[in-house]
Amino acid sequence: MDIPAFNTLELTVDDGIATLFLNRPEKMNAFNREMKDELLAAFDFTDQHDEVRAVIVTGKGRAFCAGADLSSGGDTFDYKKRGGEGANPDDAHRDGGGQVAMRIYRSLKPVIGAVNGAAVGVGITMQLPMDVRMASEDAKFGFVFSRRGIVNEAASSWFLSRVVGISSALEWCFTGRVFSAAEAKERGLVRSLHKADELYPAAVALAKEMVEQSAPVSVAVIRQMIWRMAGAEHPMEAHKLDSKAMKSRGGSEDVKEGVMSFLEKRPAVFPDKVSRDLPDFFDWQGEPPFE
Amino acid sequence: MDIPAFNTLELTVDDGIATLFLNRPEKMNAFNREMKDELLAAFDFTDQHDEVRAVIVTGKGRAFCAGADLSSGGDTFDYKKRGGEGANPDDAHRDGGGQVAMRIYRSLKPVIGAVNGAAVGVGITMQLPMDVRMASEDAKFGFVFSRRGIVNEAASSWFLSRVVGISSALEWCFTGRVFSAAEAKERGLVRSLHKADELYPAAVALAKEMVEQSAPVSVAVIRQMIWRMAGAEHPMEAHKLDSKAMKSRGGSEDVKEGVMSFLEKRPAVFPDKVSRDLPDFFDWQGEPPFE
Amino acid sequence: MDIPAFNTLELTVDDGIATLFLNRPEKMNAFNREMKDELLAAFDFTDQHDEVRAVIVTGKGRAFCAGADLSSGGDTFDYKKRGGEGANPDDAHRDGGGQVAMRIYRSLKPVIGAVNGAAVGVGITMQLPMDVRMASEDAKFGFVFSRRGIVNEAASSWFLSRVVGISSALEWCFTGRVFSAAEAKERGLVRSLHKADELYPAAVALAKEMVEQSAPVSVAVIRQMIWRMAGAEHPMEAHKLDSKAMKSRGGSEDVKEGVMSFLEKRPAVFPDKVSRDLPDFFDWQGEPPFE
Repeated sequence: MDIPAFNTLELTVDDGIATLFLNRPEKMNAFNREMKDELLAAFDFTDQHDEVRAVIVTGKGRAFCAGADLSSGGDTFDYKKRGGEGANPDDAHRDGGGQVAMRIYRSLKPVIGAVNGAAVGVGITMQLPMDVRMASEDAKFGFVFSRRGIVNEAASSWFLSRVVGISSALEWCFTGRVFSAAEAKERGLVRSLHKADELYPAAVALAKEMVEQSAPVSVAVIRQMIWRMAGAEHPMEAHKLDSKAMKSRGGSEDVKEGVMSFLEKRPAVFPDKVSRDLPDFFDWQGEPPFE
Repeated sequence: MDIPAFNTLELTVDDGIATLFLNRPEKMNAFNREMKDELLAAFDFTDQHDEVRAVIVTGKGRAFCAGADLSSGGDTFDYKKRGGEGANPDDAHRDGGGQVAMRIYRSLKPVIGAVNGAAVGVGITMQLPMDVRMASEDAKFGFVFSRRGIVNEAASSWFLSRVVGISSALEWCFTGRVFSAAEAKERGLVRSLHKADELYPAAVALAKEMVEQSAPVSVAVIRQMIWRMAGAEHPMEAHKLDSKAMKSRGGSEDVKEGVMSFLEKRPAVFPDKVSRDLPDFFDWQGEPPFE
Repeated sequence: MDIPAFNTLELTVDDGIATLFLNRPEKMNAFNREMKDELLAAFDFTDQHDEVRAVIVTGKGRAFCAGADLSSGGDTFDYKKRGGEGANPDDAHRDGGGQVAMRIYRSLKPVIGAVNGAAVGVGITMQLPMDVRMASEDAKFGFVFSRRGIVNEAASSWFLSRVVGISSALEWCFTGRVFSAAEAKERGLVRSLHKADELYPAAVALAKEMVEQSAPVSVAVIRQMIWRMAGAEHPMEAHKLDSKAMKSRGGSEDVKEGVMSFLEKRPAVFPDKVSRDLPDFFDWQGEPPFE
């Protein structure tokens, strides 16, 4: 497993846990096109390698991510003017934060946000498709779009109300205020608060709990089932999907091992691999076309 | 009203409140095909009889339900091998827990889960389409599917995030951990905690509060409206549905009694019956086809 | 800006904040057809005038709104008998509370409910499409429909579970009980509790926080995006919508001002107006046909 090198990220893999560090500390890890492209590549990497069981995303330095890089000033969001920039001139038509959000949504591995400092604008909206957010006690948050004259991006109009409820979503996005970790915890944006130097170890501990006793194929299928059914109209859609999944996995070697290890009161050793054994009746990483 | 006898359940009806006891205490009330068939029959019974106003589901002995009966060992979920078992060979294609969940979803009477002890696997997922869960302080919960190599069943990928939010749903299902009643309460899986011997009386008290001053037809229609609209895309769907329901019920004898008893400050005696007077503009117990 | 006069409402506009007082204090502000028509007109007014940045709805006297006016007794909801009443004979087919709820849902300005006293029946369901609810410590609430023999109206079967979760929605609507402000706060129906004489100032303070540093066009677009995406099946719908919105707003004068004022650490003065500058790629106030 060759771990790729990035310019705006640092990726490590340790004991099954990948950590993606946003790594422009001198810029408060501000988000730019290169970071967008590298985040997409990084999640392709974590999905493709069975050695990676879970992913933590955190920031180098004192911020998580201070939002979009504003070094182009008033033209920062003027995609017509800036259309020629970057590898793909069509980027202007497709929100960059949304590309990252949709990629994280499709992840086959659990994703934990470890919010070590300021998480503002795309710095917080990119975290909403992560499964869990944990934060340092002195982290700050802000959905500041209305104060910059723009709007919610990164598909956050879909994700945010599902994480914190519609009233907090609206209040935070109307006011654009920067708020404390305590408020984020009270309203359900983050799961737990930690002293600054205990945050990353706590995230690693939770990541390990998510994978140590669990079958990797089960975790990948469950992740996609729960996220996709969060928007489904009728529970019958889940009943149809999980009936197929139960039939498909029910005769697998993983299940025989999972049940027998439980009955024999010993740790399970699951043989199946995400790269090889995902049930083929469903396109687990598919998505509707952009247009 | 002849109360049916079951092998895996005990059904009582007292003062309008039906109680369904899961009744395989020597097996921790483990779920098997017979229990599945009997639960379907029991909810048909409670829906058909106007004497039943609300339903409580609880367990005999020290568990609520410890999950699927694993007495077939590693073949427990191997539906191809086990396809000949049970009354219906097609069962293998349709998840048993999901059949129960979809049936409870369609109930015309309020359903309360009284979690007297361990509720693990299908023992907790079958409770998610119930309207309210109350628990003993020493109850235990676990969405253990990933540890057995299987996946969320009983349409729980749809129900769970709607009850506890998506982050807790994902964390519990990834880790597969067994957790305390206190954690279940803190995260919204259960409404309230009770001392072991006060749980059932508290469930009866809440069931009575749900029916004593309420019109049965109203309760049945409200139950289906709220569950179905939980997945609807646009509130216009609710506006269309409730406009018809208000017009249909607005001229009923129930409404005349409901308004006049309120104005006269006396208890209402509602004449309409669920078995006879459900508005006919909507198929209240219909569902999309399985395939 | 000529502020219209109403019979059942009083409308004031002060420093950008419109306040709609329900104004039948001798009837506990009971809802009738005239109030319905005037509420629709009032929200048309607040949307059309750029001087209005946010809306507060509260009640004159000791109640917020005690529900439907029951002065027609047992015929109150008998729309066949009462079909000739009011300006529009078709009203009988379209729930009046729902007309108000759908209108508030389409508002282009933030809406805050300031619950100064009893909010029962349509008195609370009309508040669910408001963005935030704040309450006096001695406010009372009740979804009393089942006790009157009717059902949830005002599209509340869609809204309520999205505000408080499905279990509280079902419990409150089955029991029909009148409950305290403390219970409303604990279960998320209201954002915060206030002493009676501090409620309105607190609502004004929050309304000002929602608009003082925010671009009006951003707030209008964000409001519609978050409410509409609350029911959308897949986050791809949000990604498509916000990509267009970011492209449309990204080159606007508002964004240049929003970014530059931030970089220059000075207050922003946003030039764009809701009445003129809403992006035209989407019908921000459209809705599906009633039938």
